[in-house]
Amino acid sequence: MDLVWISVICGLLGFATVLYFVRYVLRQSEGTERIREISGAIKEGALAFIHREYRTEILVIIIAAILLALIPALGWKTSVAFIFGAICSMGAGYAGMNMAIRSNGRTTAAAKESLNQGLRVSFRGGAVMGLTVVSIGVIGLSILYFAWHRDPNFLAVIPAFGTGASLVALFARVGGGIFTKGADAGSDLVGKVEAGIPEDDPRNAAVIADFVGDNVGDVCGMGADLFESYVETVVAAMTLCIVGVVVAPEAIAPWVAKLFPSRSPEASLQAAWWLPMLIMAGGIIASIIGCFFVRVGEKVEMAALLGALRRGTLTSSILTAVFAFIIIQLLNAQIGLFWAVLAGLIAGVLMGESTNYYTSYAFKPTRDISEASTFGGGATMVRGFAVGLISTWPPVILVAIATIIAFHFASFYGVAIAAASMLSTLGVTLATDAYGPVADNAGGIATMAELPPEVRERTDALDSLGNTTAATGKGFAIGAAVLNALGLILSYALAAGLVSITSDGKITAPPELSLLSPSVIVGMLVGALIPAVFVAITMKSVGVTAGLIVEEVRRQWREIPGLREGKARAQYDRCVDISTKAALREMLAPSIMTVIAPILVGVILGKYALGGFLISSLATGFILAVTLNNAGGAWDNAKKWIEAGHFGGKGSDAHKAAVVGDTTGDPMKDTAGPSLNIMLKLMSVISLLLAPVLSRFPGIF
Amino acid sequence: MDLVWISVICGLLGFATVLYFVRYVLRQSEGTERIREISGAIKEGALAFIHREYRTEILVIIIAAILLALIPALGWKTSVAFIFGAICSMGAGYAGMNMAIRSNGRTTAAAKESLNQGLRVSFRGGAVMGLTVVSIGVIGLSILYFAWHRDPNFLAVIPAFGTGASLVALFARVGGGIFTKGADAGSDLVGKVEAGIPEDDPRNAAVIADFVGDNVGDVCGMGADLFESYVETVVAAMTLCIVGVVVAPEAIAPWVAKLFPSRSPEASLQAAWWLPMLIMAGGIIASIIGCFFVRVGEKVEMAALLGALRRGTLTSSILTAVFAFIIIQLLNAQIGLFWAVLAGLIAGVLMGESTNYYTSYAFKPTRDISEASTFGGGATMVRGFAVGLISTWPPVILVAIATIIAFHFASFYGVAIAAASMLSTLGVTLATDAYGPVADNAGGIATMAELPPEVRERTDALDSLGNTTAATGKGFAIGAAVLNALGLILSYALAAGLVSITSDGKITAPPELSLLSPSVIVGMLVGALIPAVFVAITMKSVGVTAGLIVEEVRRQWREIPGLREGKARAQYDRCVDISTKAALREMLAPSIMTVIAPILVGVILGKYALGGFLISSLATGFILAVTLNNAGGAWDNAKKWIEAGHFGGKGSDAHKAAVVGDTTGDPMKDTAGPSLNIMLKLMSVISLLLAPVLSRFPGIF
Repeated sequence: MDLVWISVICGLLGFATVLYFVRYVLRQSEGTERIREISGAIKEGALAFIHREYRTEILVIIIAAILLALIPALGWKTSVAFIFGAICSMGAGYAGMNMAIRSNGRTTAAAKESLNQGLRVSFRGGAVMGLTVVSIGVIGLSILYFAWHRDPNFLAVIPAFGTGASLVALFARVGGGIFTKGADAGSDLVGKVEAGIPEDDPRNAAVIADFVGDNVGDVCGMGADLFESYVETVVAAMTLCIVGVVVAPEAIAPWVAKLFPSRSPEASLQAAWWLPMLIMAGGIIASIIGCFFVRVGEKVEMAALLGALRRGTLTSSILTAVFAFIIIQLLNAQIGLFWAVLAGLIAGVLMGESTNYYTSYAFKPTRDISEASTFGGGATMVRGFAVGLISTWPPVILVAIATIIAFHFASFYGVAIAAASMLSTLGVTLATDAYGPVADNAGGIATMAELPPEVRERTDALDSLGNTTAATGKGFAIGAAVLNALGLILSYALAAGLVSITSDGKITAPPELSLLSPSVIVGMLVGALIPAVFVAITMKSVGVTAGLIVEEVRRQWREIPGLREGKARAQYDRCVDISTKAALREMLAPSIMTVIAPILVGVILGKYALGGFLISSLATGFILAVTLNNAGGAWDNAKKWIEAGHFGGKGSDAHKAAVVGDTTGDPMKDTAGPSLNIMLKLMSVISLLLAPVLSRFPGIF
Repeated sequence: MDLVWISVICGLLGFATVLYFVRYVLRQSEGTERIREISGAIKEGALAFIHREYRTEILVIIIAAILLALIPALGWKTSVAFIFGAICSMGAGYAGMNMAIRSNGRTTAAAKESLNQGLRVSFRGGAVMGLTVVSIGVIGLSILYFAWHRDPNFLAVIPAFGTGASLVALFARVGGGIFTKGADAGSDLVGKVEAGIPEDDPRNAAVIADFVGDNVGDVCGMGADLFESYVETVVAAMTLCIVGVVVAPEAIAPWVAKLFPSRSPEASLQAAWWLPMLIMAGGIIASIIGCFFVRVGEKVEMAALLGALRRGTLTSSILTAVFAFIIIQLLNAQIGLFWAVLAGLIAGVLMGESTNYYTSYAFKPTRDISEASTFGGGATMVRGFAVGLISTWPPVILVAIATIIAFHFASFYGVAIAAASMLSTLGVTLATDAYGPVADNAGGIATMAELPPEVRERTDALDSLGNTTAATGKGFAIGAAVLNALGLILSYALAAGLVSITSDGKITAPPELSLLSPSVIVGMLVGALIPAVFVAITMKSVGVTAGLIVEEVRRQWREIPGLREGKARAQYDRCVDISTKAALREMLAPSIMTVIAPILVGVILGKYALGGFLISSLATGFILAVTLNNAGGAWDNAKKWIEAGHFGGKGSDAHKAAVVGDTTGDPMKDTAGPSLNIMLKLMSVISLLLAPVLSRFPGIF
């Protein structure tokens, strides 16, 4: 039997669990009429944005698919796979968001009952997204596998699927990120800072746009993002196998046969294809079980809540390791592959912990930022920036160690497997991640619906818990992205004929690919530049969007009589509309740059320079992404620590300084940082996809 | 005749000009008794710091020299050259600072007369440093050359000279940078922000420490820094020749013979050694002439002043190009080398211009930051950070193009020559750079001596002009550092036997050095980490030092009766002492990390990984350094643009937001950013120096 059927079954089990959770959430009370009204406005705004965003995306996808079909070396199946990947990615994001906009009001209503009930509704809302993403991922890949895995062109088909998913993810992350942080910053600036009214006050015309942003950026954007990460790891592992067969069949066979000793080379190769799919399948089962471990008694405290979430993710990791061990035994594979799996899983967990250490106010780094805030905004910035930069060392060292271990036991295939196992528990980790924005929305609705303050307190507690898990999630997402991109870059190098693999899995390369060849050096210099420019463009876009929002809110206060006094209703839809237009306009430049840059480098500077370009942008992008994520997270929580009554508490000068840090960190951690992950992988997978074309450009030296 | 005598003569001409300028400055009036008193206190503090810093440095140098002498592959001459390099670097910094602390009071006195007289005194004070640095550089290298260039161990001697200079430069930049920005930020925080008293107010106990900082950080630190840059370019070019002779004599000979067609291989090689020294010699003459071009009529405006400075630097660049052309003709060398020189010169000038564009308030990027400040500190930060990041593209592209051109015509030797020519006009560019801190000090003295406000206005004009030239100077310093480090890294690769050069100048390398070998990839991941950690440590140190200063000033206000009212005198020396101790303590960790990191990587991960480590840290460090320098410069000038009366002017909310940006940018642009330059080169030159040892470690894969 083709063992990929096991993946299909696990994917279907995932969907079944999703249905169970959907039914559970939809059965909950929708709350008072005011709650329904507000959440209705959010739903409307979110759907309006997504529909317009998807229209733009579909246009780009169709154009790209036509261009791909015109390249003789690729063929029409590539275009179909590309479109299929894009549709799956859109579907994952859409499904997650659709659930989130139905869970927010229900969470508010549940939080009126108890904190625990609030957690249950919001967590199950988030779990729908987590499990949908992994189930669509596994089933999408299986469909592709069954349809074409015997096709000689499968080498181009698999990366095309990844490229489609990646392009949609980049649009969703960048567009959604600009929308959410533009609306958020604009709303805060004009409301909290300028007019001195509380957060989420109904007199602020930008509040609904802010809530919509949580859904389109933090939920839909994250869904597409992690769907892409998830499938891309399998893409990397599979391509490494196929590319070997196509490009260097005589070398790959003994190497694969060594890892998967079997009766025939075909059977060995088959096993090498199965392994990542089966690890993912095991991860889905582990995630489902993990989701049910997230439960607490009726009377609970924050520490218990955090413990419950951690128990869920940790259980899943352990189960995945056990499943992987069994799978490797069943496939009669080398035990070394298990060490690669374990290296990936452990590095992922530790990366999450290190992110938590550097960004949670339970620890010294973030508290130091709070203390520095007593010296003013400049000190907050300097200290936070230093924390972000120093926090890069654990992930870099962990990825380096995981790479060394994985490579030692199974060459680059091992690196791809380590990346896959790092993401295999995504079902549950994404659930703990995605419920945050739901809780955030629920809190906003509580304020706007003028519910008693203890409801807002409960949703704030859930939100704050969500920040911690979100930070942990980001930590392992970037680590997985780096391992994954490494696998993709090697696939590119093999596919473009830059390197070859010897029978014992070692890599040989011509002098043109030497680290010190001028092509590679120039490629590396330019490669380090790209993430910096990308971050600059996206951060500037957030600023521009926020400025437009501020102007609009000011205009409404000026022109709508009675709005300031709370007697008239603000035109919320105008702000949603402005954010939508700005986000769609601003997302194009960085996305197109990401697609064009590797092609230009490959054509002008040549295929060797492109190798240097990809690796260097990966190394620099890794550092930048971790710095942005962690500095942003630490500033956010340093502000919360002050708000909890330290160093003068809310309203003190230290608090004002901390707010500056938080405002700066928001677009870093929620727009630029997470987009970098995708950007790095998109550049790698495009190079891989176009390898047959790019291999014809030797470069200028 | 050995043409290096020409360099010696030019160096002596440089010293003669220095003496002329010193006599000119010392003949000027020292001003009123109060001015003498204040500048006396600054002199005392600066000398006290330098003496203590040098004591620490000498200790480290002696230990390092002993360790070097113990390595059999290197020998005692290496230690002597190392100490010699360190002493030259110390001497260059010391001489420059000694002049600066004698020029500041005189500039104040001269500014009482006229703006033009103020410019003349401060510029000639700065020119002393510029010309001293290049003269010591050329003569020091000549001494080394004449003493040992026929010694078989010259390969280890030349990098040792560079390493000594580099280590001192790092200490001076980091220590001085922490001192100056710690004192500056501390003084501003407690004075301007907390107590609401003006800048440089005598009641603030930290003001003298702040003035001292300008001298020990911005003058002495910069002198040591650029001395190192200057000699390191020659070191790289020379080592490339020698390393070829020692490591691959059969290959290097035809390649050098092609570039320098001559009767014998020895004569060709001789010419290859002479070229960088002669370019530097030509640059000194061009700089001397350039310095005399900096003159204006008695009644002048800012634009005319800036024009005068630019005329000086541009004249020097053109003259250097002309001299280089003549030298290349005289040496009967290939004309391609002239294109390498031109590529370096033009790229340097354009890099300076691009820095100017991104950091001067005459242009849009900086004005945009000012405008964003009307939305609060967060917007200032986001926009400024975006400007810093986007500003990386021109220098990266320019360096890439210069590398391509230089490599095309003369392989890696061409890259080293391009770096040398970029820095050949240092005599005059450093002069336009070094006069800024003198003018800054002069302004402070004017305020403290309670001179009429027009004096302060004049010194402020000079200071502001100095900011522009400082930014330009930084732009080309980092570009030269990158080209230079590339040359050093290739020298390391040759010396450690990683690569070899074919007779036509092409590089061949084993698969272990391939871009995608696991050693190289792991090395690259770790390499990108090091600049980030370095920046984090230095920025945090500035914050810690500033905090100590704030506490001390507060204590004095509390404990010294009448100080707040201006009736009692503050204990200025206490703050100088605190800054000194903090700076000396905090400078050790980043400096030692820089020395240890490449050795550890080389020993643990192996010599191939070290190659990846060096290149990757270079690419990432380049991006980081440009971002830090330019974001810092842009924030500074965005604040000045608001102070000039835009967006609400001084004291408005926008101004407060801009101050946050400026405070954040200060340690970025004056401590972390410039230190990165040195750090990158120090890691490269240490690897080169230890290549005979490191070549024995093949690594873990």
